[in-house]
Amino acid sequence: MPEAASAPSSSRALIGDSEFDRDTAVVRREPGVHDIDLSAGWTILGAVNGGYLLAVLGRALADTLPHPDPFTISAHYLTASRPGPAVVRTETVRTGRTLSTGQASLFQYDDAGNEVERIRVLASYGDLAALPDDVRTSATPPPIPPLEQCFGPEDGPAPADDGSTIADRLMIRIDPATLGWALGKPSGKGEMRSWFGLADGRDADPFSLLLAVDALPPTAFELGLKGWVPTVELTVHVRHRPAPGPLRVSITTRNLAGGFLEEDAEVWDSADRLVAQSRQLARVRLG
Amino acid sequence: MPEAASAPSSSRALIGDSEFDRDTAVVRREPGVHDIDLSAGWTILGAVNGGYLLAVLGRALADTLPHPDPFTISAHYLTASRPGPAVVRTETVRTGRTLSTGQASLFQYDDAGNEVERIRVLASYGDLAALPDDVRTSATPPPIPPLEQCFGPEDGPAPADDGSTIADRLMIRIDPATLGWALGKPSGKGEMRSWFGLADGRDADPFSLLLAVDALPPTAFELGLKGWVPTVELTVHVRHRPAPGPLRVSITTRNLAGGFLEEDAEVWDSADRLVAQSRQLARVRLG
Repeated sequence: MPEAASAPSSSRALIGDSEFDRDTAVVRREPGVHDIDLSAGWTILGAVNGGYLLAVLGRALADTLPHPDPFTISAHYLTASRPGPAVVRTETVRTGRTLSTGQASLFQYDDAGNEVERIRVLASYGDLAALPDDVRTSATPPPIPPLEQCFGPEDGPAPADDGSTIADRLMIRIDPATLGWALGKPSGKGEMRSWFGLADGRDADPFSLLLAVDALPPTAFELGLKGWVPTVELTVHVRHRPAPGPLRVSITTRNLAGGFLEEDAEVWDSADRLVAQSRQLARVRLG
Repeated sequence: MPEAASAPSSSRALIGDSEFDRDTAVVRREPGVHDIDLSAGWTILGAVNGGYLLAVLGRALADTLPHPDPFTISAHYLTASRPGPAVVRTETVRTGRTLSTGQASLFQYDDAGNEVERIRVLASYGDLAALPDDVRTSATPPPIPPLEQCFGPEDGPAPADDGSTIADRLMIRIDPATLGWALGKPSGKGEMRSWFGLADGRDADPFSLLLAVDALPPTAFELGLKGWVPTVELTVHVRHRPAPGPLRVSITTRNLAGGFLEEDAEVWDSADRLVAQSRQLARVRLG
């Protein structure tokens, strides 16, 4: 087990006072304009992870809209983000009693100092704490062995110095039944299941759920594909405020065709509640 | 079988010359501004159907972007649309070689003549005809009986005059195994399966797929709920150009909780290709 997961709770990072909170904090320059220095700690092959970026945009919208929590957030990824300065511009589209809708774009700068748009997002926010507690779900938590029987990056060979830093900040323990790709024997099934948390032990909140849906190795690996699977569009529904403790994340791909695939994620909390659902469309290089 | 489905192809409406094409046609007033008179023929309980509206927005974006086909389109529904004049404003967000991204909003007018935004959309477009033909899908077509063993609105009692006109324009034949709600005995499973087409026999294209994913009775009916299930957000992935002939549509809900549910749709064509996938977040009134 990772040190963070076995450490007493008194030494864990807290929501609001953790690396994830500091690295996603936006500074309001003026209404609708937020600055951030994108951290170099959340990269994959040199590009900033799409889930981390979604959390940054989600926090800028939470600072703009009258409701606190992203209920549904749809992101279209335009160009790859790099660590460094960025600006997030937000707009309130509509304000209602129980839901409000906003738009946000993240920009960085080219060599001439011109703004280049990285991502554009539409989102509807509400208040998760105000929802009735009815649950009639037919979904069931993913079948995953206990955390100590699953495997993380530190169980494999030392990682290559390839510009991927995000693994240092995550607690990921993958179900060995979905880990064939790491042994050169992909199952051919588009499934992966994992325990998930932040390495410093910070519990999950709606913003870290935006990270959780896009932080596992791609299902494409279990389909026998290699290389980067860039996201075109990612939509996340946050359905419930997560209970403390590690999450379980299940991702599946049913349709790999024409050089694209969809990847669906479900995130379950320690109280067996389905707390987030997502779907993304991603490009693949077929080989 | 409905008349249209059994009619010889010579009497069928054609893509580009059908009621659906005329009712979704936008007129470019100037670059980025399109006018349309929303038809009264696609309403449910007096409000214009969200799938029809998505097709209208999709056509305005196709007229704006350099690529012809919606690959992924995400809509946030703000206020209910009514039949009558509307304006669609579009923006090109980014143009790439194989994908371009755009934004569109549909507005109508309040009593004072002010524009009121109804829907806002982000979408990435490409060229379906240019995709490689690789298919490694693990998804299988929905198990649905032959069309003549399924049931449509005309098999039930005469519909109430409740401001719902869309059924006259659709060929819907629902799998009796998912039709318990119509007999007062909902199955409790969040599933519905149906044959789907346009009543005038026009074959499917990417724009009518945007309608197909949101045109069945809601899965909530089979979960024992009644009344309107308004869409908050709907994202559609169009994965392949549909072959001629009727479509099969499968919709499922796994998580009804806190007054919201997700509804996933898959659309299969007559060549057994998965041509579209969608997910929406909708509100429910729990009773």
